Amino acid sequence: MPTDTFRMKATAEIFSQGEEIVCGQIVDSNAAWLSQNLNQMGFRVQRHTAVGDELDALVQLLGEIAGRADCCVCTGGLGPTCDDLTTEAVSIAAHAPLRFDAEAMAQIQRYFDGRQRPMPPANRKQACLPENAIRIDNPVGTAPGFMLKIQRCWFTFLPGVPAEMQAMFPAVQRQLQAQFSLQADSLVTLRSVGIGESAIQQRLEALQLPDDVQLGFRAAIDEVQTKLLFPAGFAVDARQNLTQQAASLIGDAVFAIDTPEQAQGDLPTVVGRAMRQRGLSLSVLETASQGLLAAKCIGQDWLRGMQFSADVAATFEQWGCEYDADGLAASAAALAQCLYGRQAMVWQLVQLYRGSLSDPQQGIVLYNALQTRDGLYQSTMTIAGSATTKQNQAAILALDFLRRTLQI
Amino acid sequence: MPTDTFRMKATAEIFSQGEEIVCGQIVDSNAAWLSQNLNQMGFRVQRHTAVGDELDALVQLLGEIAGRADCCVCTGGLGPTCDDLTTEAVSIAAHAPLRFDAEAMAQIQRYFDGRQRPMPPANRKQACLPENAIRIDNPVGTAPGFMLKIQRCWFTFLPGVPAEMQAMFPAVQRQLQAQFSLQADSLVTLRSVGIGESAIQQRLEALQLPDDVQLGFRAAIDEVQTKLLFPAGFAVDARQNLTQQAASLIGDAVFAIDTPEQAQGDLPTVVGRAMRQRGLSLSVLETASQGLLAAKCIGQDWLRGMQFSADVAATFEQWGCEYDADGLAASAAALAQCLYGRQAMVWQLVQLYRGSLSDPQQGIVLYNALQTRDGLYQSTMTIAGSATTKQNQAAILALDFLRRTLQI
Repeated sequence: MPTDTFRMKATAEIFSQGEEIVCGQIVDSNAAWLSQNLNQMGFRVQRHTAVGDELDALVQLLGEIAGRADCCVCTGGLGPTCDDLTTEAVSIAAHAPLRFDAEAMAQIQRYFDGRQRPMPPANRKQACLPENAIRIDNPVGTAPGFMLKIQRCWFTFLPGVPAEMQAMFPAVQRQLQAQFSLQADSLVTLRSVGIGESAIQQRLEALQLPDDVQLGFRAAIDEVQTKLLFPAGFAVDARQNLTQQAASLIGDAVFAIDTPEQAQGDLPTVVGRAMRQRGLSLSVLETASQGLLAAKCIGQDWLRGMQFSADVAATFEQWGCEYDADGLAASAAALAQCLYGRQAMVWQLVQLYRGSLSDPQQGIVLYNALQTRDGLYQSTMTIAGSATTKQNQAAILALDFLRRTLQI
Repeated sequence: MPTDTFRMKATAEIFSQGEEIVCGQIVDSNAAWLSQNLNQMGFRVQRHTAVGDELDALVQLLGEIAGRADCCVCTGGLGPTCDDLTTEAVSIAAHAPLRFDAEAMAQIQRYFDGRQRPMPPANRKQACLPENAIRIDNPVGTAPGFMLKIQRCWFTFLPGVPAEMQAMFPAVQRQLQAQFSLQADSLVTLRSVGIGESAIQQRLEALQLPDDVQLGFRAAIDEVQTKLLFPAGFAVDARQNLTQQAASLIGDAVFAIDTPEQAQGDLPTVVGRAMRQRGLSLSVLETASQGLLAAKCIGQDWLRGMQFSADVAATFEQWGCEYDADGLAASAAALAQCLYGRQAMVWQLVQLYRGSLSDPQQGIVLYNALQTRDGLYQSTMTIAGSATTKQNQAAILALDFLRRTLQI
């Protein structure tokens, strides 16, 4: 571990506020998200703390952190209700009286105007910020955030709703970069579908990594991420070379490589970019994924249509196509061809499955057929797990089948 | 806030150890799981802390907690490798030298024997426990856990792998119940859709809550939860009476009430139960929600079919129904009626919208029309936010419209 480098880095902490976190009603995913981002900026994150809705505990904790860390990002407790105490606690800990911020109030008012709802009086509280705090605007919710320095530590306070917190973070990033002289590590993420974490690890055993490059893995619902963390100052071409080697070892399961220079995005984004670039469009018949494939492609205009039917035989009849329950691969192919004939130039993807979605002890066999201008492509695979796991896998694997057909 | 009751309760903390948590490579779901379980046992969980792999930081933190809490459950840092430092830190903080535990060693040996793998020498380290610690056996992995008291606090140390930690927790529970005299609280959750947190708080101002009942709120993506926490020993009929009053004040936005006796579930579950009980079925035309409504109803057989089309006018033409872009409410109604005529006895829900999904600065107006055997129902509402927020709201509000029509 490069202890010397770590010691020189500015230290950061994450502080999450809310009874729902301390009581375990929700998992604190904000802390991980913020840690990752602060680490990538060049901070050394040293501690996470979560406390509930008690003013004394909040004030005490702010004081502890103020004497210990260079930077702290706090989430939660900025809401309009009586159990939202963060701003009050900051005011006490920083000896900074609360001041009404007219611009914050105007933004909150605009939020309610945009939704044609009257602003409840309680929301006025959210426009009161500690004196001399830097306001961080909230483009997607009502609670503005703010930054201020207490003792040695630059504190940032953001709402606990992940979408709001994440939308506000770029502004925080700019402020922190102005306050600190940061040297960022370079993180490369190889994103893959259809291969497990341990299989990837095994394939990467042949990779010769220098001691100061860290290898890590993260299994998410939709993909497995292989992470290579290069220290600040690591030569760019050596980094690119190692990244390329790792990608080759993992193979065609890699659908995107995110580097500090460029993020390629998630699977729907990667597939969507290729479809648009080639001027293609698609219609889908979903069964096991029950609408989730289309839902994942929200905002992508190449997806022309989708249908789902609980009664697959009736759908075949509706399109005048023969359904054979014992030959699902052939049936999927026949329907994809038939639908392609009715809607010229729109690719047709048909998904059928055999087995029980709801029984977690049983897998299902998935049959995908894709009719393109150049011909028919098919894939068959087995997936297991709960109904929602199978649903998600069915959506993701169909999208990945589309990616492989597009040869991205 | 019922400070006295809280003060009387045994306090607990959660402490997670590991560089992967502090760096944000993984989300700390153990902390939430343990908090929920400790809360249900009757502890008052006050703080979560996570730190990385640094011996000094670990020893210092253990000392802080030892003087502050009655109970602390720690996960992680019990592995066989050199960066697993928890046991060593405990030994220093508790002034308890490490002792080789022959029974622990035998269990680790049996773990490897059962998998027909040789035991790596590094695992011997896991059989060394602080003097006088109570060993907690690990039925599913190699690292045993242990408990011991430091100053006022009973510490429990468990592995960070969730499956191992969870398998060992029943034994921990028995030990804690022997050490503490615990009484569990009762949590009631009122779950609602279509009303904001602050509006609920305003409506609940009329509710006379005893001082020892705690009121809290949680805004999730799909719903707002209003939580009433009743102390142990609170009379059941008084609890039910207050719950009923709160539900009446919030009004028909409440779709479910979860009590310690019974959980009613989320919106798709509540709607699904009513549809099945009444033997009803539904087909949907989705636009703004683009498949997400159907996706949320996975595993529910009353949803007979769903279609989505990027070209709404073409869909109307396909069903021989007139489309008027300037009269979306009337168009939705006409299509719902037309589709109902073609598929007797299946309710038809048609969703249309006006405005831009992708522009976060602009709201959309949503038109729902539902044709049932008893007649046509319609709703119009405005939603705002990012494309995915609008998509989710469109799906949830359509389901809620269905719930209101069913008069659940």
